[in-house]
Amino acid sequence: MKKIVLYIAASIDGYIATKDHSVGWLEQLENPEGSDYGYQDFVNGVDTLLMGRKTYDIIRGFDIPWPYEGQKTYVITRQEHLRTDTPNTEVLSGSLATVLPALKASSGEKNIWLVGGGATMVSLLRHQAIDEIMLFTAPVLLGSGIPLFPESDLQYKLTLEEHKTYASGMCYTRYAVNY
Amino acid sequence: MKKIVLYIAASIDGYIATKDHSVGWLEQLENPEGSDYGYQDFVNGVDTLLMGRKTYDIIRGFDIPWPYEGQKTYVITRQEHLRTDTPNTEVLSGSLATVLPALKASSGEKNIWLVGGGATMVSLLRHQAIDEIMLFTAPVLLGSGIPLFPESDLQYKLTLEEHKTYASGMCYTRYAVNY
Repeated sequence: MKKIVLYIAASIDGYIATKDHSVGWLEQLENPEGSDYGYQDFVNGVDTLLMGRKTYDIIRGFDIPWPYEGQKTYVITRQEHLRTDTPNTEVLSGSLATVLPALKASSGEKNIWLVGGGATMVSLLRHQAIDEIMLFTAPVLLGSGIPLFPESDLQYKLTLEEHKTYASGMCYTRYAVNY
Repeated sequence: MKKIVLYIAASIDGYIATKDHSVGWLEQLENPEGSDYGYQDFVNGVDTLLMGRKTYDIIRGFDIPWPYEGQKTYVITRQEHLRTDTPNTEVLSGSLATVLPALKASSGEKNIWLVGGGATMVSLLRHQAIDEIMLFTAPVLLGSGIPLFPESDLQYKLTLEEHKTYASGMCYTRYAVNY
């Protein structure tokens, strides 16, 4: 069974980007070790990406080629006829209660990366579909921005499964979600 | 020079309490080590408490004797004539630009605990007065509640100075604030 894993960085006050969707504050973080924060290992362990439509539009809007050509990307949206124009990308507009279990049961040993964003994450949490949260907390107070966790009526206990700190002051924690 | 230290616990989504000011979710956290999360050591290292008026009212409203009788408590408020009825408690209603440096320069080797809440913390950050943030992140997704960091226009880099995890899954990080 594939796991759905949220792998994401946030400021200490819980923002994943400034309001204009910039992650410059994150890229500017001094990184004396030159660490990739386990990104390559993580990416090697996934064959499928899951993201909301807004996140899809934001990444597609970056002035770079589509960065996830080697993996299958699913865009979660209520727009049944959404057109995608990036490699290896498919729209998931069906009921999450149906499509998420099917996705997890699909073939391959590798996992599914939930890229974002907030609304999609809350939907997946509501469907008890996120297995792990790999959270990188940057030593930055951002003040405002796009929240990692939008307000919701959901309450879950987590289990801390792994943690590590980096010379940059980045603090990594991996949690399992207990439904 | 005394340091002003924010020592506080929050959920992974950045709430210090539920909307009804309950911290039951925190007290219910399984704590196999019976750890006090360094609380007694921390409290022994402070001789002064600093809190906003709302936090003061909340703590005063608890059905317990005033828990900080041994320390001096200052309540930060714009209400010049606020009456306090707890032991060893004084009102600070003057300009923070004046009272905070005076407080830090006051006698004694011990530090100042900024107890809360959010508005007071933002005011102190704006006055570049918080020296350290000791943050205990609980392995709980709370969904909604009283945010640790209210939205603000402040941006600061932090330096991760210490970290520790507990069997309960609590993740402790201590940051210096770089102004």
